[in-house]
Amino acid sequence: MESYMIYMPIVLAVLGLIYMAVKRSWVMKQDAGDGKMKEISDHIYVGALAFLKAEYKLLAFFVIGASIALAGVAAVVESTSYLIIVAFIIGAVFSAVAGNIGMRIATKTNVRTTQAAKTSLPKALNISFGGGTVMGLGVAGLAVLGLTAFFIIFYQLFMGGQWTNTTDMTLVLETLAGFSLGAESIALFARVGGGIYTKAADVGADLVGKVEAGIPEDDPRNPATIADNVGDNVGDVAGMGADLFGSYVATVLAAMVLGNYIIKDMGGAIEDAFGGIGTILLPMAIAGAGIIISIIGTFLVKISSNDAKEAQVQKALNIGNWTSIALVALACFGLVTWMLPETMKMEFFGEGLKEISSMRVFYATLVGLVVGAAISSFTEYYTGLGKKPILNIVQQSSTGAATNIIAGLATGMISTFSSVLLFAAAIWASYAFAGFYGVAMAASAMMATTAMQLAIDAFGPIADNAGGIAEMSEQEPIVRERTDILDSVGNTTAATGKGFAIASAALTALALFAAYVTFTDIDGINIFKAPVLSMLFVGGMVPVVFSALAMSSVGKAAMEMVEEVRRQFREIPGIMEGTGKPEYDKCVDISTKASLKQMLLPGILTIGFPIVIVLIGILIYPENYKLVAEMLGGYMAGVSVSGVLWAIFQNNAGGAWDNAKKSFEAGVEINGVMTFKGSDAHKAAVTGDTVGDPFKDTSGPSMNILIKLTCLIGLVIAPILGNHSEEGLALNNNIEVIKEISVETRGDRTLDETATAKVTTRTTIGDGETIVKEKTFKGNLDEVTKQAEAYAKTQKN
Amino acid sequence: MESYMIYMPIVLAVLGLIYMAVKRSWVMKQDAGDGKMKEISDHIYVGALAFLKAEYKLLAFFVIGASIALAGVAAVVESTSYLIIVAFIIGAVFSAVAGNIGMRIATKTNVRTTQAAKTSLPKALNISFGGGTVMGLGVAGLAVLGLTAFFIIFYQLFMGGQWTNTTDMTLVLETLAGFSLGAESIALFARVGGGIYTKAADVGADLVGKVEAGIPEDDPRNPATIADNVGDNVGDVAGMGADLFGSYVATVLAAMVLGNYIIKDMGGAIEDAFGGIGTILLPMAIAGAGIIISIIGTFLVKISSNDAKEAQVQKALNIGNWTSIALVALACFGLVTWMLPETMKMEFFGEGLKEISSMRVFYATLVGLVVGAAISSFTEYYTGLGKKPILNIVQQSSTGAATNIIAGLATGMISTFSSVLLFAAAIWASYAFAGFYGVAMAASAMMATTAMQLAIDAFGPIADNAGGIAEMSEQEPIVRERTDILDSVGNTTAATGKGFAIASAALTALALFAAYVTFTDIDGINIFKAPVLSMLFVGGMVPVVFSALAMSSVGKAAMEMVEEVRRQFREIPGIMEGTGKPEYDKCVDISTKASLKQMLLPGILTIGFPIVIVLIGILIYPENYKLVAEMLGGYMAGVSVSGVLWAIFQNNAGGAWDNAKKSFEAGVEINGVMTFKGSDAHKAAVTGDTVGDPFKDTSGPSMNILIKLTCLIGLVIAPILGNHSEEGLALNNNIEVIKEISVETRGDRTLDETATAKVTTRTTIGDGETIVKEKTFKGNLDEVTKQAEAYAKTQKN
Repeated sequence: MESYMIYMPIVLAVLGLIYMAVKRSWVMKQDAGDGKMKEISDHIYVGALAFLKAEYKLLAFFVIGASIALAGVAAVVESTSYLIIVAFIIGAVFSAVAGNIGMRIATKTNVRTTQAAKTSLPKALNISFGGGTVMGLGVAGLAVLGLTAFFIIFYQLFMGGQWTNTTDMTLVLETLAGFSLGAESIALFARVGGGIYTKAADVGADLVGKVEAGIPEDDPRNPATIADNVGDNVGDVAGMGADLFGSYVATVLAAMVLGNYIIKDMGGAIEDAFGGIGTILLPMAIAGAGIIISIIGTFLVKISSNDAKEAQVQKALNIGNWTSIALVALACFGLVTWMLPETMKMEFFGEGLKEISSMRVFYATLVGLVVGAAISSFTEYYTGLGKKPILNIVQQSSTGAATNIIAGLATGMISTFSSVLLFAAAIWASYAFAGFYGVAMAASAMMATTAMQLAIDAFGPIADNAGGIAEMSEQEPIVRERTDILDSVGNTTAATGKGFAIASAALTALALFAAYVTFTDIDGINIFKAPVLSMLFVGGMVPVVFSALAMSSVGKAAMEMVEEVRRQFREIPGIMEGTGKPEYDKCVDISTKASLKQMLLPGILTIGFPIVIVLIGILIYPENYKLVAEMLGGYMAGVSVSGVLWAIFQNNAGGAWDNAKKSFEAGVEINGVMTFKGSDAHKAAVTGDTVGDPFKDTSGPSMNILIKLTCLIGLVIAPILGNHSEEGLALNNNIEVIKEISVETRGDRTLDETATAKVTTRTTIGDGETIVKEKTFKGNLDEVTKQAEAYAKTQKN
Repeated sequence: MESYMIYMPIVLAVLGLIYMAVKRSWVMKQDAGDGKMKEISDHIYVGALAFLKAEYKLLAFFVIGASIALAGVAAVVESTSYLIIVAFIIGAVFSAVAGNIGMRIATKTNVRTTQAAKTSLPKALNISFGGGTVMGLGVAGLAVLGLTAFFIIFYQLFMGGQWTNTTDMTLVLETLAGFSLGAESIALFARVGGGIYTKAADVGADLVGKVEAGIPEDDPRNPATIADNVGDNVGDVAGMGADLFGSYVATVLAAMVLGNYIIKDMGGAIEDAFGGIGTILLPMAIAGAGIIISIIGTFLVKISSNDAKEAQVQKALNIGNWTSIALVALACFGLVTWMLPETMKMEFFGEGLKEISSMRVFYATLVGLVVGAAISSFTEYYTGLGKKPILNIVQQSSTGAATNIIAGLATGMISTFSSVLLFAAAIWASYAFAGFYGVAMAASAMMATTAMQLAIDAFGPIADNAGGIAEMSEQEPIVRERTDILDSVGNTTAATGKGFAIASAALTALALFAAYVTFTDIDGINIFKAPVLSMLFVGGMVPVVFSALAMSSVGKAAMEMVEEVRRQFREIPGIMEGTGKPEYDKCVDISTKASLKQMLLPGILTIGFPIVIVLIGILIYPENYKLVAEMLGGYMAGVSVSGVLWAIFQNNAGGAWDNAKKSFEAGVEINGVMTFKGSDAHKAAVTGDTVGDPFKDTSGPSMNILIKLTCLIGLVIAPILGNHSEEGLALNNNIEVIKEISVETRGDRTLDETATAKVTTRTTIGDGETIVKEKTFKGNLDEVTKQAEAYAKTQKN
C-alpha cells in the first residue's frame, strides 16, 4: 500500500479543490443584494478582471522571455532538461489561476457579505470567511496538485518511476525547480504590482477626494473609489495568495532536494516501503495532509451571537487556526514516524556524518510550527491596538508629525529584535535537530496550514470591501457597524498574516539556500573570501534599493491618479452633485497601467542582479566556477538577511502607524486629555499612516518575493555553476580515487566480517602539493564494499 | 639607516604635535572680542568642559570594569599578556586627550572666528580652519604616537627588538589590540553620547524656544541655547574626532596583523633592511607620512577676497584636500617600493599561495584613496543643495509632510546603491591586488589624510558656533553673513565627512575581520553552517535595534530638556524680557546626564552581544571552539553589512532632509511658483528635517562605532577561541608531521642542487578517516631544508 503514497498528496489536493468548488457554489448562491449594491460590486469585479487581463498580457511576454532564457540554460547545461520550460510555464499558469480564483471569489463575496450584514453578523462572517476559504483552498490545492503531478511525471520520465541514484533524482528536482520559479515569478507581478496598485489608488483617492474635495472615503462621487476597492483585492487577496503559493511550492521543493541529499549521505540508496524515496515524499505528504486539516480548521470558525464584538470574531478565527496547527503537529508525528527510516545519516558541514533519528525531524517540524505561531504574536504586540508600542506612538503624536514618524520608525526598527532572534533560534534549533533537512521540514510544517492562513487573511479585504459597498450604496449604519467589526479583525489578521508571510519567506529562502549549496556541490559559502564578502554587501543593499524603488513607484502612480481625478472633477458636469457619472474605469486603467509599468524596474533588479553577478564572476574567474557559485551564495545570503530585516521593519512600522491613527477613532488619553479624530495629534497620526501605507502594503511585503525569487534564481542557475565547477576541477586537478578491499582468511574460508575497505583520494593541488585523504571501513564484506563505493563516488565530485 | 625606520612614525607624529602646539598658540593669540561675545563663548567653553568632566567620570568606571574583564581574559588565555590592560587604559586616555584638545580649541576658536568675521572673511576662514587643524593634528599625532610607541615597547619586551617568529609577533599585536580597544571604547561614549547630547539640546531648544515661546534660534533668552551650542562641539567635534581616532588606530593595527601574516605565508621570516618586519612597519610609516602631508595640505586652504562666496571657500578646502590625497599616493608609491620585498607570497583562501609583487600593494592603496574621494562625491550628490534628489524632496514637500518623509526615506535608501557597489568593488579589487593585506592597506592609505579630513570637518561646527555667538551677542548682520558662508560650506563638509567616516569604518571593519580570522586560525567563515548563518541574521539585526534605541534616546533626553526650559520660563522672573538671567548650566547639566544615561543601553548592546554569543557558543559546543569562532565571525559580518547600510541610509536621508529644508531659505520653484520659508511646503520640510536630525547626527554616525567596536571586541576575544581550538584539535586529533629530505649523490659528492624535501602531514580526523597532505620542495639543499622546516611549522598550527 505504501508505494501508492506518492499519489496521496494529489488525492488530498483534489479533495481540497472539490471542497473549494462546493464552498464556492455555496457562496455564489447567497443573496447578492439590491441594484445599487450589485452595481458597485460589479464595478469592482470588472475592475479586478481588467487588472488581471492587463497583468496576464504583460505576464505572457515575460513568460515567453523567461522561457527563452531557460532554453538557453538548457542548451548550455547538459544536465538541464528542456522540460524545465514546461514546468516553468505551468507553474506560472497555476499561480495565475490560483490568483484568478481568489480575485473572482473575493469580488463576488464582498457584496454578499454586505447583504448578509443587513440581518446577521454570524452570517456575514460565515460568508466572508467562506470566500477566504475558497481562496485558501484554491491556492493550496493547486500548489500541491501541480508540484506532485510534475514530480510524478519527471520521476517516471527520468527514472522510470524507480529509484536509481541521487544524481538522477537531482535532475528530477532541478527540473521541478522550474515549476517553483514560474510560480514565484507570477508572485513578483502580483505582490509588487499589486502593492503599487493598491496604494496608488488609495493615496490618489484620498489626496483628491478627502483632502481637496472634502468628500468622505468610499464616496461614490470619487472616480478613484472603485480603483481603491479593486486595489484591496489586487494587493491583499491576489498578492498575498501568489506570495504564499510561491512559498508553499518552494518550501516543499527545497525539502525534497534536501531529502534527496540525505539519501546521498546514506550511501546513495535507502530501503523503505516508499520506493526508497520516503525522505523526498514526506514534505509532499505533510503538505497534502495540511489541506485536509485546513478544511477541518475552517469548520471551527463561527460565531453565534448577532451582538458579537471583535474579540469573539478574533476568538473564532484563533480557534480554527490553533486547532489546525495542533492537528498539523499530530500529522507530522504520524507521517514522520511512518515514512522516514528510524535513523538516518546526515552530513553536517565541518562536523561530518551524524546519525539522526526520525524523531528529530519531528522536533524540527515543531520548531516550524512554533515560529509560525510566535511570529504572529510578536507582530500583534508591535502593531496591536492598545499595546505599549502603539500607545507610545499615540503619545508622540501630540508633539507633531515629526515625533510621530520617529516613534513609528523606531517601533518598526526595534521590532526586528524579537523576530530575528526567533528566526536565528529556529534556524539553529531545526538544524541541530536534523540538519538543513530539518530547516526545510520546519518550513514545510509551518506552511502546511497555508490554506487556513489564507482563509483568515483573505477574509479581511473581503470585509473591508463589504464595508466600502455598504458606504457607497448608502446602507443603514448598522450594516457598516457589522462590517466594521469584521474589518477591524481583518486588520489584525492582515498584520499577523504579513508576519506569517515573512516567516515563510525567510524559512523558504533558507531551505532554498541549503538546496543551492547541494546543487552546486560547493563546500559551503566562505565569507572570508573577498569576492564572496563583497557580494554579501551587494546582496544586503538590494532589498534597501528595491524598497526605495517600490515606495517611489507608489508616489509616481498616485500622482497620475490625482491628475485623472482632478480632470474628471473638472470636466464631468454634475459629478459632485451626484448627477454626473464618474468614469471609474479610467481610474482603474491608470492604476493598472501605472502599477505594471512601475514594477518593471524593481523586477529587473530582482532578476537581473543574480544573473549579472554570475556573468561577471564567470568573466573574472573562468576557471573557478565554484568561487562564482560561492559569490552568488554570498549574494543570496545578503539579500535574505537584509530582506528579512527590512520586511519586518517596514511591515511593523506601517502597521503600528495605521493602528496609532485608528486609536484616535475611539479616543485616546494624551497627557491626561481625551483626544479624538480631527485633533492636531490625530493629524500627525494621519501623516504617519500615510508614510506607513507604502511601507506595509508595497515595499514591506515585496521583500518576501525578492528574497525567495533571488534564492530560486540561484537554484536554477546552480547546475550551470555546479557542472562546470566539476569540469574546472577536472582540468586543474588530478583526483585519483583508489579502493582497496581486503578480507582476512582462515584457511580457505574468508572471514566476511573482518573485511577492511580503504579508499584513498589523492588530489594534486599544484605546486608540488598533494592532498591524500584516506578513509577506512571495517566490518561485513558486502557492507564495506557498498560503503566504500558510495564514499568513492562522493569523492569524485 | 633603514633599521631606524621603526622610529620614523614617532618622529613624524611628534613633529605633527609640535606644529599643532604652534598653531594652537597662534589661534589663542587672536582677538577674542568684546564682553558679551566673550561671556557667551565662556558659557560654551564651561559647558563643554562640564560634559567632558561628567563623561570622564563615567569613563573611569567603564575603564576600570573593562580592565578587570581584560585581566580575566589574560588570566584564562595563556598567550594574552597582562600588558593589554596597560595598552587599553593608555588607548582610552589618548583618545580622551585628543577629544579634550579638540573641544578646548574649538570652543576657543569660535569666538575668535566671530571677531575676525567683523572685518575679514579670509581671516575668519583662516582662524576657524586653524582651529580645525589643531584638532586634526591632535588626533592624528596622538594616534600614531601611541600606537607606534606601544609597538616598539612590546616588540622590545616580547621579542627583544629582534625578529623571532610570527607567533611572538602575533602576541605583540594581540597586546597592541588593547590600545585600539581603549580608543574605540572612548569613541562609543563620545560618538553615541555626543550624538544624543547634541540632538537632545537642539530639539529641546527648538521645541520650547521656536515653537512654544516664538523666539528665534540661538536667542540668549532661551536657557537651552548654550547647551545647543555645546552640543555642536560635543557631537561634531569630539564625537567625530574620537570616531576617526579609533578608525585610524584600528586600521593601522589590522594592517600590521595582516603584514605579520604575510611573513607567516612566506615561511616565517623575510629578509629586508627593516629588521624583517617591513610589511608590519609599512602601515605605520604611511600613517606618519600622512601627518606631514596633511600639514602641507592645510597650508593650501586660504582665500584672498573678502567678498568670496561658498564656492570659493569650498574650492580652497578642496585644493587642500585633493593635494594631500595626491601626495599620499606619491608617498605610498615611495614607501611601498622601498619597504616591501619585491615579491611576496600570500595565502588566498581556496586559491592557495600566490606571488604578489609589491607594486600590487601600491595599487591597493590607490583603491583606498579612490574610495575616500568617491564616497564624498556620492554623499554630496545625494545631500547637496540644488542636486536632483534634494529638488525631488522639495517638490514632494508641496503635498505635505508625509510625501516629504517618503521622499527623504527613499533618497536615503537609494543612496546605498552606489556606495555599497563602491565598497564591494573596493573590497574585491584591493583583495585581488594584495589579499586582505591589500584591503587593510587600502584603508590605511585612505586614513592617512585623517588630520586633513578632521581639519575640514571640525571647521564646520566652529563656524556654526561663531554664527551662534554673533547672533547671541547681537552683532551687525554682515558678521552673521560671513559666518553663514563658512557654516554653509561646513554643512557640506559635515555630510561628506560622514561619508568618509563610514567608509573608514567599513574598511577598518573588514581589515579587523580579516585580522580576526588569522588570530583565531579558522578556515574562513562558512555561512552554510546553520549556527554561523543564524549569527549572521542576529548581527544584521543589531544595527537596526541600536539605531532605534539611539533615536528613542534623543526623544527622551529632549523631553527632559523641554521640561527644564518650561520650568525656567515659568519660574525665573523677567527671563523673556531679557532682564532675568536663564540658568544655562542647568540645561547643560540635563543634556550631559541624559546623554550619558541614554547611551548605556546601546553601549551594553554593542559590547554585550559578542560576549553573550561566545558564552552561549562555548556552552553548546564546548569541544568545538572553532565553530564558536566562526559564529562570532558571522555575527561580525552581519553587523558590518547591516551597519554600513543603515549608516549610509540614515546619514544621507538626514542630510537630504536638512538641505531640502534649507532650499526654502533662498526660495524654490514648486509647480512653477516660487515658494519660501513659512509656506506650507516649508513646514513639511521642517518636519522632515526634524525626523532627519537624529538620523544624521545620532543613530547614523553611531553605526561606525558599532561596526568597529564589534570587530575589535571580536579581535580581543579571538585568542581565547584560537588557543582553545588548538587544544581542542590536540585532544581530538592526531597530527603527525614528517620531514624527509633526500639528496642525489654522484659518487662521494652530494649534488646540493638536486635536494628534495617532502613534508607529510597526517591528520586523523576520527571515524577511520585520515587526511594526508604531502608537499615537496625541490632545489638547493639549504633552501629546501629551510622551506620544509617553515612549512612544517605552519602545519603544526
